[in-house]
Amino acid sequence: MTDDQRGPRPPVVGMVGAGQLARMTCQAAIGLGIGFRVLAGTPDDSAALVCADTMTGDYTALPDLLAFARGCDVLTFDHEHVPGEHLAALERAAADKAGAGQSGPAVRPGGAALRYTQDKLAMRERLRAFGVPCPRHAPVTDLAAVSACAADWGWPIVLKAVTGGYDGRGVWVCGTPEEAAGVLAHPVVVFAEENVAFDAELAALVARSPHGQGAAYPVVQTVQRGGVCHEVLAPAPGLAAGRAREAQQMALELAAELDVTGLLAVELFAGPAGLLVNELAMRPHNSGHWTIEGARTSQFEQHLRAVLDLPLGDPWMAAPQAAMANVFGAASPDIFGRYEHVMAADPGVKVHLYGKQVRPGRKIGHVTVLGSDMAGLRSRARRAAAYLATGEEGE
Amino acid sequence: MTDDQRGPRPPVVGMVGAGQLARMTCQAAIGLGIGFRVLAGTPDDSAALVCADTMTGDYTALPDLLAFARGCDVLTFDHEHVPGEHLAALERAAADKAGAGQSGPAVRPGGAALRYTQDKLAMRERLRAFGVPCPRHAPVTDLAAVSACAADWGWPIVLKAVTGGYDGRGVWVCGTPEEAAGVLAHPVVVFAEENVAFDAELAALVARSPHGQGAAYPVVQTVQRGGVCHEVLAPAPGLAAGRAREAQQMALELAAELDVTGLLAVELFAGPAGLLVNELAMRPHNSGHWTIEGARTSQFEQHLRAVLDLPLGDPWMAAPQAAMANVFGAASPDIFGRYEHVMAADPGVKVHLYGKQVRPGRKIGHVTVLGSDMAGLRSRARRAAAYLATGEEGE
Repeated sequence: MTDDQRGPRPPVVGMVGAGQLARMTCQAAIGLGIGFRVLAGTPDDSAALVCADTMTGDYTALPDLLAFARGCDVLTFDHEHVPGEHLAALERAAADKAGAGQSGPAVRPGGAALRYTQDKLAMRERLRAFGVPCPRHAPVTDLAAVSACAADWGWPIVLKAVTGGYDGRGVWVCGTPEEAAGVLAHPVVVFAEENVAFDAELAALVARSPHGQGAAYPVVQTVQRGGVCHEVLAPAPGLAAGRAREAQQMALELAAELDVTGLLAVELFAGPAGLLVNELAMRPHNSGHWTIEGARTSQFEQHLRAVLDLPLGDPWMAAPQAAMANVFGAASPDIFGRYEHVMAADPGVKVHLYGKQVRPGRKIGHVTVLGSDMAGLRSRARRAAAYLATGEEGE
Repeated sequence: MTDDQRGPRPPVVGMVGAGQLARMTCQAAIGLGIGFRVLAGTPDDSAALVCADTMTGDYTALPDLLAFARGCDVLTFDHEHVPGEHLAALERAAADKAGAGQSGPAVRPGGAALRYTQDKLAMRERLRAFGVPCPRHAPVTDLAAVSACAADWGWPIVLKAVTGGYDGRGVWVCGTPEEAAGVLAHPVVVFAEENVAFDAELAALVARSPHGQGAAYPVVQTVQRGGVCHEVLAPAPGLAAGRAREAQQMALELAAELDVTGLLAVELFAGPAGLLVNELAMRPHNSGHWTIEGARTSQFEQHLRAVLDLPLGDPWMAAPQAAMANVFGAASPDIFGRYEHVMAADPGVKVHLYGKQVRPGRKIGHVTVLGSDMAGLRSRARRAAAYLATGEEGE
């Protein structure tokens, strides 16, 4: 047996970050038979526990990123926190190698696209320039500016950190000038946004490859509490077909406009004023976890196919409906002791645990149920998630 | 953060062997959030390439098995080749630890069950004693005995190696006394079996837990060439519901009778004489690869649930029909170069590659297609598998 008989080595994707998104991408990479590496902060990170090719390092340190990139064909991301100047340096390194006739790792999505997930004010301004409907917003540095916004839009006013927020962090809904003053007292750069009325929060998940191929998943409803996603219902119940198509179209156009490669998740408010874009993410997204069982191609496989510039997979549903519920850490950490009950109570529930330390409020897993009776699916998913977290049936 | 907050550590399953079955079991273990180790012959083994906790060692060496077993809660198997005396020693070690109030790894399935996959003559005799319909068989040591069988059953006569055969190896269909004499000249212990007429080969896959819970997958048709599985059609086309139930019931009863823990795959001939048992396997099985996408619970997750004595998952289909085709190595090893075509031609085909060296005739992956038109599914799966292997569309 010579090396030749193994054939050209499989392409290697390196994912910066080793949270649950990298962990679930690792599962998809195993299926595709490609190489997959993660850059983990610690050996106990969710994906580091399961990935055979883990490097421990600091994603804010360029030398670590460059060392990690060596041997990868594509670099992609579990989160949006790699500093923009490092992304630029990685892209320059790849261009230099290409200039020298070698292939360096392609950075997908690229820094120019990722910028709009890292700087929410830049994102708002870019979307407005592109004509995408968004909540009204304004840069603010003092209370007078906030009050001027409120005079136009009414209270409450939403203040958002320009960088670094996620899962409800970095977002403050201020009902009064006093509350706004309290937020402005923090050493955080914020901007103001109107607090829009909505009937439902939606997410439109699409993939786009460097070739420009696009694929759109069914639009889902996300159920949030305190800015944190608790449930995802696919497809979004009661959403008119035309509205769903509009959201998919908008997400595909945005992906092309921002030159996204990989996944783009567009979080939307649906209300009397139509669809408004709330947030963007350029990676697998909590609103797409249901696709592991619920779609013909999971979002994790789709992201890998997209960043490898392979033809995209069928994004359509594998069942009429799917409900996903996140599992949050609670006081009692003995999740495995509760597996028996959850699995016996509902042999059809699909449990995913991330191997993360149990801390109150932390996302440590999710459950998915497929079928054709959304109210029933939702109650099954909620019950299983609540029981896993606490040992009680919950609501 | 104290260790307590992580909670009791997840259970650890150790799988002896690191082929594609272990590789796909690894994917399922990641989802369940349990610990998973493999004992690999070499670091290049299919599962060793992707499993974060791989030990390299020799499954025929008891010290390696004992070292591997340390830290595992359950030991299970990717193949049936661990010597019976070592299985017994592992079970004694676990019993001794249990006697000392510690918990050693449970061996699942146990050696007493695995014996019937290791010794085909013992299997035949046990099944006959249990009243399970099988092809007629007889121990033979010389041509006179073979000819005596042929006088009863007619030629051809099947000669089977008592131990060590798989994928068509160790099975000889002898049309004449001269061919039989040629087989008997090998230094291999064989027995004779009647060459049964059949309309289709079926497989009934069931799981059984130490608690005694059982779950049966839909009965499938396997399409074999030269004793090697090429395609699996789920559910078996044209199989009468009563016959399918009979096969499931037989497999569940056999699992209980043989005290199998984990999966039991029963390969069957379906013909004018009804169902006859051909082979048994006590592990995930090629005839169950379609369950990854095609069933609510994949055979790999089901095996883990069973050996961990967790409640079993819903084995029912996730689509009306599924077709699976194996990908065999051919002359040209550049599988990844052909991904683009296969994925572009059929966005709904699910490709699984095992990371194995490409050797002509070797199983290196499989593809699955779900839908509701078996002829179409089958042709899509065959085309994708043939193209991946050779770069040609095949039949």
